[in-house]
Amino acid sequence: MFEKLRMPKKITLGIDVGGTGIKMGLVERSGKLRRSLRFSTPSKSDPKEVAELIGVQARMLLKSKGFGTLLGVGVGAAGDVQRQTGIIRLSPNLRWKNVPLKKLLARHIDAPIVVENDANAAAWGAYIVESKRAVKNLACVTIGTGIGGGLIIDGKLYRGATGTAGEIGHATLYPEGHTCPCGNRGCLERYIGVRALSENARQAIASGASSLITSLVKGDLTKIEPLHIQKAARQGDLLARRLWRQAGESLGVGLASLVNVFNPEWIVLSGGLSRAGRLLLDPLKKTIRERSFPVPSRAVRLVISRLDQDLGIVGAGLLAFESQ
Amino acid sequence: MFEKLRMPKKITLGIDVGGTGIKMGLVERSGKLRRSLRFSTPSKSDPKEVAELIGVQARMLLKSKGFGTLLGVGVGAAGDVQRQTGIIRLSPNLRWKNVPLKKLLARHIDAPIVVENDANAAAWGAYIVESKRAVKNLACVTIGTGIGGGLIIDGKLYRGATGTAGEIGHATLYPEGHTCPCGNRGCLERYIGVRALSENARQAIASGASSLITSLVKGDLTKIEPLHIQKAARQGDLLARRLWRQAGESLGVGLASLVNVFNPEWIVLSGGLSRAGRLLLDPLKKTIRERSFPVPSRAVRLVISRLDQDLGIVGAGLLAFESQ
Repeated sequence: MFEKLRMPKKITLGIDVGGTGIKMGLVERSGKLRRSLRFSTPSKSDPKEVAELIGVQARMLLKSKGFGTLLGVGVGAAGDVQRQTGIIRLSPNLRWKNVPLKKLLARHIDAPIVVENDANAAAWGAYIVESKRAVKNLACVTIGTGIGGGLIIDGKLYRGATGTAGEIGHATLYPEGHTCPCGNRGCLERYIGVRALSENARQAIASGASSLITSLVKGDLTKIEPLHIQKAARQGDLLARRLWRQAGESLGVGLASLVNVFNPEWIVLSGGLSRAGRLLLDPLKKTIRERSFPVPSRAVRLVISRLDQDLGIVGAGLLAFESQ
Repeated sequence: MFEKLRMPKKITLGIDVGGTGIKMGLVERSGKLRRSLRFSTPSKSDPKEVAELIGVQARMLLKSKGFGTLLGVGVGAAGDVQRQTGIIRLSPNLRWKNVPLKKLLARHIDAPIVVENDANAAAWGAYIVESKRAVKNLACVTIGTGIGGGLIIDGKLYRGATGTAGEIGHATLYPEGHTCPCGNRGCLERYIGVRALSENARQAIASGASSLITSLVKGDLTKIEPLHIQKAARQGDLLARRLWRQAGESLGVGLASLVNVFNPEWIVLSGGLSRAGRLLLDPLKKTIRERSFPVPSRAVRLVISRLDQDLGIVGAGLLAFESQ
C-alpha cells in the first residue's frame, strides 16, 4: 500500500470512535488536518459493523489523491483500552466489553494500527498542537456525550499501570449519587456532558419550569440539545443560566480536586460543551479558585481547544506517528 | 562539620514536621533508620519556636558518636511547599502561611537543607524502601491527623507545576460537606484521619449511642483516640465497627477515583490509621473494587507501609541524598 501511492508527504489516519459519532481524518506530522469526515455510530454499536463501516469510510477518504504516504492508523476509542492488543476492555458509552477493535479493523485496513483511549489521544493532540510541547504537565478534559480525560506528564502521555489513567469522568462527584453504567455511583459524567445537561433541562421543564428552551425545540423536549440551552441562556433565560452554572460548578468541583492532586500547568477543555464559552467557564473558574489550594489554582491555565471536535482525530493521528 | 567527624558512612537527617508531632532520625542511603526521636509540635506552632526546637533536638541527635558523615538534611512538612525556597506556602494543619522554614532552620543547622511536602517525602520513602524502585507508578497515602498524598510517576517524585501535586486529602468527597481550613468544602480529610475518626466517635456517643469506647476512656470523651475505637471494634462493639467501616468506605471513594484517574501499580498506606489493619482495609478494598474500573482496580496493590510512622523521616532523609 505504501509503495503504490508514492506521494512525498507522510500522513496518518486518525479515527475517533465515540458513543454518538465516529470521526476520521488525514493528519500531517505537524498536526494539520488534511481531510476529515464524520458519521453516526451504528445504533447498536455492534463491533464488527463499526469496524466494517470504518473500513469503508477509510477507503473513501484514502482514495482521494494527493494526501501523501499513509504511515499508520491511530484510533482513539471511548473506554478502557489495552493498547498492546488494541482491545477495548470496557466502554460504557459504546456498551462494549472486551472488543478486539484493532483485530477487527485490521480486516479492513492494511496499515499499522494503534488503539488508544480517546481522551488520551485528545490529550496528546493538545500537547503537540495547542501547547507545542511547551507545557510539560497537562490535563485534557473532553466534555462530549460523557467526560473523558487524559494526562501528559513530563512531556509524555501518562497511561498508568494498565492504560486506564486519566478517567476523570469516572471520578466520584457525589458518593450517594446516580448509578453509572461503569458500576460506580455519582460519577462526574453523570452530572456534566451533553447527555447530562440535556437530561437536566428536560427534567426541569417536565417538572413545570418555564423556559425559552421549550419554544426553541417547539415543545418537543426529546429534541433538547446543549445548543438550545446555550441560545436560551444568551437570551437571559433563568433556567438555562442555572443549568450552565450548575454544570460549571459540578465540573469545577472535579477539576479543583484535579488541581490539588495533579497540579497541572494547563487544563485543556474540548468537546461539545466547551463551545459554550463563558456560560461554562465563568462558574468553572470561580469554583476551581474557591475549592483548590491558592498557589496551584493560580498557576493552572484553562485553555479551550481551538481544534475542538477535531482534537481527537488529530491526537489519534499524531499517536500513529509516534509509534513508527 | 563534615571533616570534623571523619566517619566512613554517609548519613542524612530526616525530619517530619506534622501538625501534632515532629519526628527526626538519622537515615542511611539504603533507607535504614539509625536513630530517631519524637516530640510534640509546640501548641501554637510558632515557626521560629518550631525551628529552634528542631535545631536543639537535631544537635542532640547528631552529638551521639558513630553515625557517620552528615550529608544533608531533608524536611517533610505538612502543607503546600515551595521546594526551591523552602517556604511553606500554606499549611492548614500547622496553621502556617508563607513560612520560610528552610531559612529559619538554617539558623540552627549547618548543612544543606531540602524542604518537601511530608507526604511527598513519605512517597519517596515508600518507593525506595517498600517497592525497592521496582514499582514505577505509586501513590502513597498517609492517614495521620489529616490525609496526605504523594505520587511517584515513572520512578520520579511527581510534584506538578508548583510542587503541590498529590494532595488527595484535599480532593472533594462531599461537594456540600463540612468546611475545611483549606477553604474548600467536603475535603476527604474532613471525613477520615485521626481527627475525623475520633470526632465522629465523640459525636455519636454524645448523641446517645452506647459503645464500649465510653468505658475505655472512662467516660471522658475528649480522650477518645483511634486506638480505643480499634480496641472496641475488636471486641465486637457495633458503633466502633460502623466507624471503621465508614472510614474505609469514605477513603475508598477517594481512592477509587485515584485508581481511575492515576491508575497506580501500588497504593501504599501509612500513618496512624493504617495500623487498624483489616478494620480499615476490608471496607476500603471492597469500596475500591465496587467503584473503580475492573482492570485498574484488579491491578492495584494496597500495601501497608512496614515503616509506618517512620516512613516520613526515612523519605525526607532519602530525599536529602537525592539532592546531593
